[in-house]
Amino acid sequence: MRHHYSYEEFLDDCKTLTKKIDWEFDTIIGIARGGLTLSHILGEYYDIREVYAINTIGYDDDKKLDHTEIFNIPDIRDARDILIVDDIVDSGETLDLVLTTLTDRYPKCNFKSASLLYKHSASIQPDWFVKEAKVWIDFFWSVDLVTDR
Amino acid sequence: MRHHYSYEEFLDDCKTLTKKIDWEFDTIIGIARGGLTLSHILGEYYDIREVYAINTIGYDDDKKLDHTEIFNIPDIRDARDILIVDDIVDSGETLDLVLTTLTDRYPKCNFKSASLLYKHSASIQPDWFVKEAKVWIDFFWSVDLVTDR
Repeated sequence: MRHHYSYEEFLDDCKTLTKKIDWEFDTIIGIARGGLTLSHILGEYYDIREVYAINTIGYDDDKKLDHTEIFNIPDIRDARDILIVDDIVDSGETLDLVLTTLTDRYPKCNFKSASLLYKHSASIQPDWFVKEAKVWIDFFWSVDLVTDR
Repeated sequence: MRHHYSYEEFLDDCKTLTKKIDWEFDTIIGIARGGLTLSHILGEYYDIREVYAINTIGYDDDKKLDHTEIFNIPDIRDARDILIVDDIVDSGETLDLVLTTLTDRYPKCNFKSASLLYKHSASIQPDWFVKEAKVWIDFFWSVDLVTDR
């Protein structure tokens, strides 16, 4: 089963998410690619210009276990309270790695995390999320342009 | 006069833009915040995981002329052909600064640029754009969530 996650649903969920987030922050980091659109609309909503991206890539390696690598870590030395956002926390591996890496590099910063969707089986739960994901999600940014090619 | 630029119009314009872009590239850089959502959907469309953000901020300074500063420059040392994207090329100052800064730092990379909208009065024209902007544009990512606060 697949679920088409439309722009309208995204907007509704963003409203819910902003009502849930009871924390003030000065910086938003979107986990690319999935978190980019969310980081954009939240940056506009909260009037925060410090919206950065961070990139992760998952590797399927025959010899070792699957692993995720992180790159393009933003320079946040002037930031204090940082909200990390992603579309979905699935296995939790990506968010876990991003949080660990950033906390390590910027021990004086405070990090919290938010996502639209969350899978109960994930290894880590974001501080705020909107819905539990129970089926495969086709986000509008992944399918709307591609399917019309 | 203001124009509400909806998600539907964005999707239509993205289709037009992808038909216009007759160039192969391995990396996308979105100028934050305006170019973030575009960079996301294009990254999905072209199946490019190397989607980065770059940040600029415009200052109104009493003493000097207005100026724009650039920060959070991505590490693209492994990239070759880079598409820089923004929602609108207005005065052209931002795109010009981004192109100059990146070309300076990465002289071996090739840069081209694309935007949804373009103002004829801009100092620089992107390689590809969809429409000329003649009125003030309210992009959906700027207003849809905010106006419903």
